[in-house]
Amino acid sequence: MKHFILASTSTLYGENYLAYLQPAMTTLYQGVTEVIFVPFARPGGISHDDYTARAAAAFAAIGINVRGLHTFADPVAAIQAAQGFFTGGGNTFLLVKQLHEQGLMSVLKAAVESGKPYMGCSAGSNIGGISMQTTNDMPIVYPPSFDTMGLVPFNLNPHYLDPIPGVQHMGETRETRIGEFHTQHSTPVVGLREGSWIYAKGDTLTLAGTLSARIFEAGKIPYELEAGSSLATLR
Amino acid sequence: MKHFILASTSTLYGENYLAYLQPAMTTLYQGVTEVIFVPFARPGGISHDDYTARAAAAFAAIGINVRGLHTFADPVAAIQAAQGFFTGGGNTFLLVKQLHEQGLMSVLKAAVESGKPYMGCSAGSNIGGISMQTTNDMPIVYPPSFDTMGLVPFNLNPHYLDPIPGVQHMGETRETRIGEFHTQHSTPVVGLREGSWIYAKGDTLTLAGTLSARIFEAGKIPYELEAGSSLATLR
Repeated sequence: MKHFILASTSTLYGENYLAYLQPAMTTLYQGVTEVIFVPFARPGGISHDDYTARAAAAFAAIGINVRGLHTFADPVAAIQAAQGFFTGGGNTFLLVKQLHEQGLMSVLKAAVESGKPYMGCSAGSNIGGISMQTTNDMPIVYPPSFDTMGLVPFNLNPHYLDPIPGVQHMGETRETRIGEFHTQHSTPVVGLREGSWIYAKGDTLTLAGTLSARIFEAGKIPYELEAGSSLATLR
Repeated sequence: MKHFILASTSTLYGENYLAYLQPAMTTLYQGVTEVIFVPFARPGGISHDDYTARAAAAFAAIGINVRGLHTFADPVAAIQAAQGFFTGGGNTFLLVKQLHEQGLMSVLKAAVESGKPYMGCSAGSNIGGISMQTTNDMPIVYPPSFDTMGLVPFNLNPHYLDPIPGVQHMGETRETRIGEFHTQHSTPVVGLREGSWIYAKGDTLTLAGTLSARIFEAGKIPYELEAGSSLATLR
């Protein structure tokens, strides 16, 4: 039974790392004593070791041990033997390049689809979509492919930002950028605001948290989906 | 003698398309009666024809005819025969993919380096740098390479935005993103605010407009460069 969380952000303003997700994590990782942490997105350029230590501190609060995927001599075998996973945010291009080059994207996908619990935040949620092509990140490295795990039949835009009325900056809004994506692809996009997450358990797929999400379907006017709604029919 | 403009944006808030650049364009394109417009970045998904019409209307004001690069049966020959060029903004991934796939990136670079006047705005300025890897755009298509023309020995970040004090959004700031770029590359980055442009004439390379630019060099604290300063030593 598939069981995963794809969260917009790891951290809410003024809160500690993963604090707002702790109740959801307790449910997701029930019975799990250790997760593998995927540190490849390296937010702000933090090292794999330092990033793993940050995740380990947050997971210690719910009694779960954390090991960094970068520490295994055989990461394929490590994923196959793992109890569960957490992929942290940062730069999605770095994350996707590492996963593809090490042959881990499909291995991680298979493990999650077999029922092992997975949580991703930000870049770690982007890879739960069909492709990373609605990331907000800079293309600081060149991945061999933009394809991701496709745990859900749509794409995510984490840290979704509404257009700010009266702003005088002429850079594209998030909505404009996603509209440009839809000139090339028909994949729906969920604009996931900070504090929202997608919760999958078996065949159910729910917008969790207290905020609505902005849904972009090719050829349709974007619309709001209320918190608690099902996403099971979006494809 | 190299002669080009790389501008942060085509349009200032509340102004018409290219209006603020008109005096600089008059100097750049002196003696030119027709330019080739590169419409591939397609802002907001506009068609090549419609985008070319928008550029043509702005160039008509300074008495220059515009032809879209997409209308030529042999675009390589068209670039080689052209008097000058303008590349409009939009999605840098779309632009770079088209230029590489049609074998035009190196042809355009050679034409500009031979002395034909070039102006780029936003995505059209990104391709004047070493790579497109400091674009703000979404990776809506997969280009065969992120390498660009390298008319200047650094990268650009157009529409540069300063961090906004007190903002509660947890997405990365522009400065954080460029810092992540510098964990992977040593190429300097010019954060070019809207209203600024880089003006190259022969061996001179100047920050034009009235605003300072934010300069990011790997391993250094970012700093401001005043309007009117030379960029000739940045590499």
